[in-house]
Amino acid sequence: MIYCSSLALCVDLYELTMAYGYWKLGMAEREAVFTLFFRRPPFQGGFAIAAGLGSAVDFIEQFKFNESDLSYLEGLKTGNGKPLFEVVFLNYLKTLKFTCDIEAVVEGTPIFPYEPIIRVQGPILQAQLLESSLLNIINFQTLIATKACRISMLTQGDEVVEFGLRRAQGMDGALSATRAAFVGGCHSTSNVLAGKLFGIPVKGTHSHSWVMAFDDERASFEAYSSVMPDECIFLVDTHDTIEGVKRAIAVARKHKGLRLLGVRIDSGDLVHLSVRVRKLLDDAGYRETKIMASNELDEMVIRDLKMGGARIDLWGIGTNLITGKGQGALDGVYKLTAIRDIDGRWCYKIKTSEQFIKTTNPGILQVGRFFGDDGGAICDMIYDVEMGFSDDVELIDSVDHLRRRKLDIGGGDIERQDLLVPLFRGGKRVYDSPDLFDIQRHTKLQMDRLPKPIYRFLYRQSYFVGLEQHLYALKMRLIAESK
Amino acid sequence: MIYCSSLALCVDLYELTMAYGYWKLGMAEREAVFTLFFRRPPFQGGFAIAAGLGSAVDFIEQFKFNESDLSYLEGLKTGNGKPLFEVVFLNYLKTLKFTCDIEAVVEGTPIFPYEPIIRVQGPILQAQLLESSLLNIINFQTLIATKACRISMLTQGDEVVEFGLRRAQGMDGALSATRAAFVGGCHSTSNVLAGKLFGIPVKGTHSHSWVMAFDDERASFEAYSSVMPDECIFLVDTHDTIEGVKRAIAVARKHKGLRLLGVRIDSGDLVHLSVRVRKLLDDAGYRETKIMASNELDEMVIRDLKMGGARIDLWGIGTNLITGKGQGALDGVYKLTAIRDIDGRWCYKIKTSEQFIKTTNPGILQVGRFFGDDGGAICDMIYDVEMGFSDDVELIDSVDHLRRRKLDIGGGDIERQDLLVPLFRGGKRVYDSPDLFDIQRHTKLQMDRLPKPIYRFLYRQSYFVGLEQHLYALKMRLIAESK
Repeated sequence: MIYCSSLALCVDLYELTMAYGYWKLGMAEREAVFTLFFRRPPFQGGFAIAAGLGSAVDFIEQFKFNESDLSYLEGLKTGNGKPLFEVVFLNYLKTLKFTCDIEAVVEGTPIFPYEPIIRVQGPILQAQLLESSLLNIINFQTLIATKACRISMLTQGDEVVEFGLRRAQGMDGALSATRAAFVGGCHSTSNVLAGKLFGIPVKGTHSHSWVMAFDDERASFEAYSSVMPDECIFLVDTHDTIEGVKRAIAVARKHKGLRLLGVRIDSGDLVHLSVRVRKLLDDAGYRETKIMASNELDEMVIRDLKMGGARIDLWGIGTNLITGKGQGALDGVYKLTAIRDIDGRWCYKIKTSEQFIKTTNPGILQVGRFFGDDGGAICDMIYDVEMGFSDDVELIDSVDHLRRRKLDIGGGDIERQDLLVPLFRGGKRVYDSPDLFDIQRHTKLQMDRLPKPIYRFLYRQSYFVGLEQHLYALKMRLIAESK
Repeated sequence: MIYCSSLALCVDLYELTMAYGYWKLGMAEREAVFTLFFRRPPFQGGFAIAAGLGSAVDFIEQFKFNESDLSYLEGLKTGNGKPLFEVVFLNYLKTLKFTCDIEAVVEGTPIFPYEPIIRVQGPILQAQLLESSLLNIINFQTLIATKACRISMLTQGDEVVEFGLRRAQGMDGALSATRAAFVGGCHSTSNVLAGKLFGIPVKGTHSHSWVMAFDDERASFEAYSSVMPDECIFLVDTHDTIEGVKRAIAVARKHKGLRLLGVRIDSGDLVHLSVRVRKLLDDAGYRETKIMASNELDEMVIRDLKMGGARIDLWGIGTNLITGKGQGALDGVYKLTAIRDIDGRWCYKIKTSEQFIKTTNPGILQVGRFFGDDGGAICDMIYDVEMGFSDDVELIDSVDHLRRRKLDIGGGDIERQDLLVPLFRGGKRVYDSPDLFDIQRHTKLQMDRLPKPIYRFLYRQSYFVGLEQHLYALKMRLIAESK
């Protein structure tokens, strides 16, 4: 994420009009709970990888309306030409300090539909103001971490270089995606600012224009090897890939000190070409030289290239990773799930909607993930922290009420881990985001603890996530009452 | 675009390694020409709307490596542990000032494949450094302006509110898309920061959480109307749309001073519901009250809703507009098209590639758009500014060489307008970006000057864009020579 002097206005206007409403009605400090969750896993898959938390924590910590923000708001008018907001309210915003409790799922954790990813508890005015920025950060980074994870499953340990800056949706679209791609399993990036801001290793050599800037391809390779003898990856397809590789080999042979790290192919049939290029390199004694491929790659193309016998060692992935090809956005939402009444008692809330998939879960929600003896995850339970749960718990699927599971968790063979951890307590940050390398390791470890069949693209098994039975009963009651 | 202290490192690493190479080889100041263009219109359509220029001009003007950028670069190492860049080179970057000439197509102009959108002419090191940032800005904003334009063609003058912040690809993905959506024809946005930065009108009322924060829906509407009597748009589908509308009407009747501007429906069958809601409103005497609809809308859905008889006055469009549903990125590229040799003569350059669609056009390129007596555009000519063209010009399609057209432009019935206008001369800005309202008007005017059949989604006619015959001949010669 790019920082500027103030991002506090990066909200939807309705958050401010509602904040104004709560303030005006004396409800600003009423304690409420909002839950951020998604409804459908991206890319028609079975899971998502939580990401963006580190950026969200920084954002919340820096949140503050500055003078120019307030002066802009002061200038807004209603349709009748009156000021939209009273000056007294703007002064309230000026001195506003966050006092919320915030919990969230650690980055790199596999998550599933309807599971709370972030829970914000505090004065309704404050919690409401975070809606769009939290959604923006978490929706996008979770989307891209998931995409990167899907790609990593297919590349099977090969190095993956993210280089989508030029096709990304804005500069922050590039930066935050690069960060998330690393969470999901990418190894490096071409984006130098992402290297500087996030410590991600940066990679890159030369483009077609370098080749074209010289009299011929050979001269361009000679020139590049004289400048970068330690880091030579030649782009060989400016005119003809096979001829390009032959020239790369000829140049490498001539310059004894040169390390021919790799050749990059950016067009044509990557199976056919990579096999031929591998043979040329091997025959010339360059067995260590890697073949890098790029050109509109994604997990589906990689699967077919691998199946087709491509000899590719490094995958350069741009557009389709950085924009989340196949699904440009995670459908995450941020919903009110509980609010205290004027007597201070919790009222649990539900939105029923015209569509059942849009019906929310009420409560102050937490997710417990159950692990068996072998350390593998069994299923997840969405529960309410006030209502708790018994040792003999029954879980009911959020959408398909016929899917149920009973668990006896009193015996000690089943371990429970709560996925939401505290980030802020009374507005004070209590969480230090791990560095990205640790997050990436966490992703891998947590992925490995879940059953493999849930990751298949096709013929997938679904991971069981259920509502704790008392929470489920409460939800049904609230639905009935709302009709 | 969000500004931070320095975006100079928002480049792909290879731009810096090539810059280093040119500097080391004494070629840094060699004059070169780069051209930015796209190959395929987005969304399987026939055109794109140029956008992002205003942001690009600001970016270039502010481009500067600061101390922390250079100190990061100083720390980069090769695989052998040596510094990637010499300190002398970093000092060169520190004092680097742009001296390029830059031309570009004015924002809001309809453009077509292979037409230069931006041309950068100047020292090769400088021109190369702009590659990824220019592509990032222009690719994305052009994509979204085109999407917004497609949507506007379908909404036929109805107000379109962009509210995609929560689903956008990063905060800048939201901001720059909001800007571009306005260029393409949207009327307002929910994004307050976009309002502040770009002067776009902001819109918004309340969300489901407002309704849920009160004891019941009616109480929530009462509360909102007491706070915002001038700006009441009630969201009516929290529990049941029809009941919601009845409650909205009841509240409006009770509060005589209240302006019931509209009701918003966010779920369910928007045709069926909007027709019923319209009748309820009309029967109650609220004929001026508008119906706003949202819920995963895009141009295709809007077309079907309109065909189905939906009574919708305002369209709230989020995810599918802000992320460019159907195509997450424009495929724009930035290619070297000419460079001076050591004797100062221009060498025109071409990249042939394994795929013909990836073959570039050489030269110092300009686009002439020809208009007939009636002011309507006839066709476009890509030509080289040094070679020029004759009065009796033949144009040849870039990809399909059998498509050709002869024009007699000496007679005075045909007017030519060059699309690329100067932005920078010798690094000095010579262009003031119009305000966004003027750009939006320009979009509409220019769209209207092109033949309508080129805008159809299906059964489309393609607009003719040809290479001037001498340029075409040169291209063929360079292709032959490269083999």
